[in-house]
Amino acid sequence: MDDKITLAHGAGGRQTRDLIEALILPRFGNPALEEMGDAALVETGGIRMLFTTDGFVIKPLEFPGGDIGKLAVCGTVNDLSVAGGRPLWLSCSLVIEEGLPTALLERLLDSMAATARAAGVQIVCGDTKVVERGAADGLFICTAGVGLPLPECRRQPVQAGDCVLVSGPVGDHEAAVFRARENVGQGMALVSDCAPVNGLVAAMAPVAGGGLRVMRDPTRGGLATALYELVQGSGCSVMLREEDVPVRAEVRALCELVGFEPYHLACEGRLVAIAAPERAPVLLAAMRAHPQGREAAIIGELVGDGRGRVYLENSFGGGRVLGLVSGVQLPRIC
Amino acid sequence: MDDKITLAHGAGGRQTRDLIEALILPRFGNPALEEMGDAALVETGGIRMLFTTDGFVIKPLEFPGGDIGKLAVCGTVNDLSVAGGRPLWLSCSLVIEEGLPTALLERLLDSMAATARAAGVQIVCGDTKVVERGAADGLFICTAGVGLPLPECRRQPVQAGDCVLVSGPVGDHEAAVFRARENVGQGMALVSDCAPVNGLVAAMAPVAGGGLRVMRDPTRGGLATALYELVQGSGCSVMLREEDVPVRAEVRALCELVGFEPYHLACEGRLVAIAAPERAPVLLAAMRAHPQGREAAIIGELVGDGRGRVYLENSFGGGRVLGLVSGVQLPRIC
Repeated sequence: MDDKITLAHGAGGRQTRDLIEALILPRFGNPALEEMGDAALVETGGIRMLFTTDGFVIKPLEFPGGDIGKLAVCGTVNDLSVAGGRPLWLSCSLVIEEGLPTALLERLLDSMAATARAAGVQIVCGDTKVVERGAADGLFICTAGVGLPLPECRRQPVQAGDCVLVSGPVGDHEAAVFRARENVGQGMALVSDCAPVNGLVAAMAPVAGGGLRVMRDPTRGGLATALYELVQGSGCSVMLREEDVPVRAEVRALCELVGFEPYHLACEGRLVAIAAPERAPVLLAAMRAHPQGREAAIIGELVGDGRGRVYLENSFGGGRVLGLVSGVQLPRIC
Repeated sequence: MDDKITLAHGAGGRQTRDLIEALILPRFGNPALEEMGDAALVETGGIRMLFTTDGFVIKPLEFPGGDIGKLAVCGTVNDLSVAGGRPLWLSCSLVIEEGLPTALLERLLDSMAATARAAGVQIVCGDTKVVERGAADGLFICTAGVGLPLPECRRQPVQAGDCVLVSGPVGDHEAAVFRARENVGQGMALVSDCAPVNGLVAAMAPVAGGGLRVMRDPTRGGLATALYELVQGSGCSVMLREEDVPVRAEVRALCELVGFEPYHLACEGRLVAIAAPERAPVLLAAMRAHPQGREAAIIGELVGDGRGRVYLENSFGGGRVLGLVSGVQLPRIC
């Protein structure tokens, strides 16, 4: 560990993992936390539930396709959903910088409320703190969420031969935030995919048939990072077919312009799933039948090479390793 | 509402209530939230639980008697406890300013872990965000918590004749933070009372005998604000006996020096309870037998005057109304 915390520690890649493994896990260690899922599965006296939290520090507060309020609801709803849960209740803790326009706060709260209604969850508790001018940057929101596990979505070990599915094009969110913030790609139609995925998961559960191994939402660090986390410790690597991974033309163009890797760009309304090969087609069909998964695709397979890597191969026989994000690509994207 | 958010909106007094009533409740409205308890009581399919959240922005990060890590665990444990719950699981969301010394973060995480162990709760999920230098002030922590309701502590309506109990001296926390921050009272031995009260509540529950009406932890806005909230809508006022309210001599001296009202100063390790008069003595005995309640006292009674006020009377026959805090006494005390 460095002797000071850097932006890279919050970027969701290698340094974030280092911070969690070096500082957090040894201190707070318990089985629920050590699972390192998108939500913790906890149990007492026969009651099992999922519990998760996320802090949102996105800049700007409003961006094409969403705002910090919508994002704060989606982020927590999605963590519960991809952990195999039905989200029920959210908390909302606001840290406001003195001077924030009340009208802006009202718009953001409207957005939270509308998103919660759309996702069918209730915001049942909250807290408000105000800090003096200069001690925060506009508004930070922390949401936590509680849900009940769906038995059909119980996490199982992944295996060689399993298929990788993604629910839609990757990278839209981070590309949209980048464009909203930087003086580049101003003509491009980049819109965040920010959306709740609990409806999509509810549509997948009935056809899972015991073959939906595990899901994740590819946020910070993007698709590649989510896949690294999903195969960690399994002895499997992921072989992605470049042609099958959906990436919007505008996102690809932005990536070429500024040197980003689309598979490292955060999504906020997608899920990636690993499924047994015999269940992948029916899961894909269920995803495509849902408004949130119309562009879903099977994008690759797991191979048992003992390496835990993510490879990208194309139809010309070329291939390369997709690394974990290291350093900072773009701070404050969520 | 003002057209900009001010520090007063985060001070826990009148303007905080205005913000919640004008901006939050109309948008997020649901029965659990509208109870406005320290934690929300939620229920699904026969499962009932308590859920709460708090953001911590205290300055300085370390102060006599505690630090932001200890406070973040105590605050959420205490909200669940005074809502009549047994706290089980906590989430921890960190918003870190780039440049925070790693050694300081380690001390604060050690403190969180030690406090969680002492309170018998687990930190099962978390999130880490890092913002650039100047976009936050060191570290903010948001914790949320889940607990199970204790049947003996189910909230009941308060009545005229009920007794008011407090578990120990009031105002220690805010006085200690004030002294740590301002160039005043440097010779005074002021130490925060920051501590988990779940053990104390667990000791009270078995002797509640159906007469423990409601509890609250007197944080922002202090004892007076907590009592206003507890009698709101009941048609009762609170008559406090000034001589019986425990206030440390050092806290009283600081208040006289700088013009604070001790009954408006935040505590972080106390609870205030309203109990049926026939149960108050046995509850007091249970509190005094617990390390966290050795200086507990019965400090007043409820009267049915229809006014919803908090009065302070002394043995000389004098009396006055304790108002709600208005404006900002001291920002960033929790």
